[in-house]
Amino acid sequence: MSKSISIFDTTLRDGTQGEGISLSADDKLKIAKKLDELGVHYIEGGIPGSNGKDIEFFKRVQTLGLNAKITAFGSTRRKGSIAHQDDNLKRMIESGAQAATLVGKSWDFHVHTALQTTLEENLAMIADSISYMKQQGMELIFDAEHFFDGYKNNPEYAVSVLRTAREAGADWLTMCDTNGGTLPHEIYEIVSRLNLELGGAPLGIHTHNDCELAVANTLSAVQAGARQIQGTMNGYGERCGNANLCSILPTLQLKMDYTCISNDQLSQLTNTARYVSEIANVHMPVNQPYVGNAAFAHKGGIHVSAILRDSRTYEHIEPEKIGNKQRILVSELAGQSNILSKAKEMDLILDPENENTKQIIGKIKDLEHQGYQFEGADASLELLLREANGEIKELFVFESFKMLVEKNAGSAVVSEAFVKLRIGGESIYTAAEGNGPVNALDNALRKALVEHYPNLREMHLSDYKVRVLDEADATASKVRVLIESQNLSNTWSTVGVSANVIEASWEALVDSIRYALIGQALPDQNVSNGPSVHGIVNH
Amino acid sequence: MSKSISIFDTTLRDGTQGEGISLSADDKLKIAKKLDELGVHYIEGGIPGSNGKDIEFFKRVQTLGLNAKITAFGSTRRKGSIAHQDDNLKRMIESGAQAATLVGKSWDFHVHTALQTTLEENLAMIADSISYMKQQGMELIFDAEHFFDGYKNNPEYAVSVLRTAREAGADWLTMCDTNGGTLPHEIYEIVSRLNLELGGAPLGIHTHNDCELAVANTLSAVQAGARQIQGTMNGYGERCGNANLCSILPTLQLKMDYTCISNDQLSQLTNTARYVSEIANVHMPVNQPYVGNAAFAHKGGIHVSAILRDSRTYEHIEPEKIGNKQRILVSELAGQSNILSKAKEMDLILDPENENTKQIIGKIKDLEHQGYQFEGADASLELLLREANGEIKELFVFESFKMLVEKNAGSAVVSEAFVKLRIGGESIYTAAEGNGPVNALDNALRKALVEHYPNLREMHLSDYKVRVLDEADATASKVRVLIESQNLSNTWSTVGVSANVIEASWEALVDSIRYALIGQALPDQNVSNGPSVHGIVNH
Repeated sequence: MSKSISIFDTTLRDGTQGEGISLSADDKLKIAKKLDELGVHYIEGGIPGSNGKDIEFFKRVQTLGLNAKITAFGSTRRKGSIAHQDDNLKRMIESGAQAATLVGKSWDFHVHTALQTTLEENLAMIADSISYMKQQGMELIFDAEHFFDGYKNNPEYAVSVLRTAREAGADWLTMCDTNGGTLPHEIYEIVSRLNLELGGAPLGIHTHNDCELAVANTLSAVQAGARQIQGTMNGYGERCGNANLCSILPTLQLKMDYTCISNDQLSQLTNTARYVSEIANVHMPVNQPYVGNAAFAHKGGIHVSAILRDSRTYEHIEPEKIGNKQRILVSELAGQSNILSKAKEMDLILDPENENTKQIIGKIKDLEHQGYQFEGADASLELLLREANGEIKELFVFESFKMLVEKNAGSAVVSEAFVKLRIGGESIYTAAEGNGPVNALDNALRKALVEHYPNLREMHLSDYKVRVLDEADATASKVRVLIESQNLSNTWSTVGVSANVIEASWEALVDSIRYALIGQALPDQNVSNGPSVHGIVNH
Repeated sequence: MSKSISIFDTTLRDGTQGEGISLSADDKLKIAKKLDELGVHYIEGGIPGSNGKDIEFFKRVQTLGLNAKITAFGSTRRKGSIAHQDDNLKRMIESGAQAATLVGKSWDFHVHTALQTTLEENLAMIADSISYMKQQGMELIFDAEHFFDGYKNNPEYAVSVLRTAREAGADWLTMCDTNGGTLPHEIYEIVSRLNLELGGAPLGIHTHNDCELAVANTLSAVQAGARQIQGTMNGYGERCGNANLCSILPTLQLKMDYTCISNDQLSQLTNTARYVSEIANVHMPVNQPYVGNAAFAHKGGIHVSAILRDSRTYEHIEPEKIGNKQRILVSELAGQSNILSKAKEMDLILDPENENTKQIIGKIKDLEHQGYQFEGADASLELLLREANGEIKELFVFESFKMLVEKNAGSAVVSEAFVKLRIGGESIYTAAEGNGPVNALDNALRKALVEHYPNLREMHLSDYKVRVLDEADATASKVRVLIESQNLSNTWSTVGVSANVIEASWEALVDSIRYALIGQALPDQNVSNGPSVHGIVNH
């Protein structure tokens, strides 16, 4: 049998059924692009017509020119109706998607209880809907809902549902463990039998994690002959989630000799998983298998000394293969070597024995303890290191800022900011409005600086994130702000931390501008091309 | 073969190797008591002598009179030494624990690379240490580290390690998948063979979650003949964690016909899991299988209408069996049946055919499109529904708020808020400071209301979250604020959305207070006991 596996990603559809996961049309487009780069073969984008943002997604995704097949999800026609008059099917066709996933019942109990129709009418609903969609030229994936419960209860009927779908022209027959209650050995047995009975029809598998077995169930189905996998990034999905592609892809490819995506693409897995978690704004558990920050983290003691002798002693794969990396926790050595290697990336040579280097490493560790996070704020880290190296001159002398938000009944909220600072001998005082407090501050600060630093006009903020660090203290807790900025050629990130969200934002804003002007802020240098990690600085 | 499974909990030992998990002696004692109530058979408490708090734990746990066997963890004696002179073994004996877990190498590669000794000396280390501990009258569990990697590399040597341990008197032979890299079908094959080769010796299994397969691997080992399971609550543990007992216990007992603990004890599982997560101060993922808050939460519209007809349509077990419960979430995917059933939970009867009902459902969907999210903000949703039902009277008339944040060079940032409103004929104007803008607003608003609504003194904000909704627009993007509030008997959540973080926070603050005063805000009602979903409102 072929060892090629077709990957069907439903992060944008079933993934959004997870509690706390909500994606805008823009979010969905960003994720779709990233999934396409990872190399998944199908991207299920949503349910056309269920809401405005899915309609928008299907329209805009066509302009992206992705390799993956964009797929629309929907149910078979309603009972007692006609397929070509079904609004649902019509909207799927109009969505412009290349493929359609049609979900139908395969558990007799569900046909009676949920659909409240006859077993025959259910088969007719499936056959009619599939034939009609195939006539429209769409590739068709048939999702047999509750297939395993159905098979256990009435195997003949469950199989007749798949046969009907196949005869009507379905390209893939996907067996869904919709409730997530089936066990790996049951999946293996049932899929093996099906594979025989249906003479090698193209089978797919869709599992849920209610017993913490979604990954194992998917692997069992593949071993029994399934060749398409439905899953989501980070296992997002209804209730306990869907099968986690971030765990399934590396296991199939690195340990079981199947081919899903290229090895280059696989090395983008960690990066993709973290990107999706950022966009979905869902915190990634530190202990997430393969792609989590602790997946290859070793605490002190025996493990660490063995790891230093040979990584294979405590690592089941090379983390680089999936783009993750080894971390040594609670170790002076680790912190220091990370910082030194970061400095090296910037062409900064820091001598680890030097008192100055020790001081800056101590300072960075102390800031991290306070809640700063430099992994997502390279530019702030670079500023700290260059500053310690004596490379950075002050751009301006801060005197004060004031920020006022005012709302009166019946009128829109107003945000104003006032910034006072000195450049050289000159005192500057500016005021600006904004559509929010941070926007007002940003406007006032730029106004103050732009006369002296005109290439600030070329940069803008491209992303703004707020994390509450110690949620138990409610409004008295600390806040971390991450700001991403951009000019024509570069993107950079900065961080600020404070109990006050405005102060934290101010800190990140100032760092962003300092980094943008890094060339001008250096001694003996008057010209700048904007930020660049290499090339501007004299060493 | 017996269908009784011995449960060995290592939350207090291997669990604390997880990143971010740190337990005091007091914490460990509390968790031990709770685990004992759940009915686990062994509680591995720590490594005696590794640190002060483990010594204290072993001393104090003896006074609790638990049913579970308290177990101490340690390595076999050092190479080239004598067991009765080994400090490590001595401390395990002195701990007063009834049982000892001794870990030894079974992978030849590790004997050479990590221990740097001969295969023969490793066998002698295991035999000597076990004989000595058995002479001291302790029950002995032998943990064969990296057993599966060892077996794949050199099966004869791996088996000889287990034979040696058994002959020296070990009561249990536990096969550890220390790196977490082994697959379920491999575990099944190897354990089945072992079970034959060792003539039914008492086998245990210890797995890690590096491939998201720890639960499946444990089940495979049990099916192949293992009769003791090592795992942790919530799957805590080194790197990606250990086998999660919270998923394994219900699967073995409710689906595979094994006996681990009593059914009464099993109904305490959710409660125990949440207690442990509270004590460990680790956030429990909402989608955790079986015991998570979303494990039986339904979001999709089709799902909800079927669930209302018969729970078995979308639930793989009855949640009550493990002490969890069903929840219906509200979201734009859901359609009206979720909203109607949410209303029903609140004892509000909404007629779906009624124009008013259609309007409120449309309004909720529209708000969600704007970025509101009601699945995390039950109280805001309840306010909307009760308002639509004409049940809510205005608490006060809003006139204005002002919020000022000021920072001068060299001094700390200052936040002040000013609130103007009317209650009845009275005009009220208050000012307050805070340690951040939202805290200042909260203080000013309470100051304005507390004279008229004195039981506001009993409530406080317990959680505050900020999400940026459309990150691409940076500081001009929308922000969603979720606030959780608490009084002596209840917890409730509210939401606000705006391009302005201060305005969004204000909205969520006002909703929180309106909900707290829901009794007083109703027509024909003057008394309130604070918020309660049922009971206060007249229908």
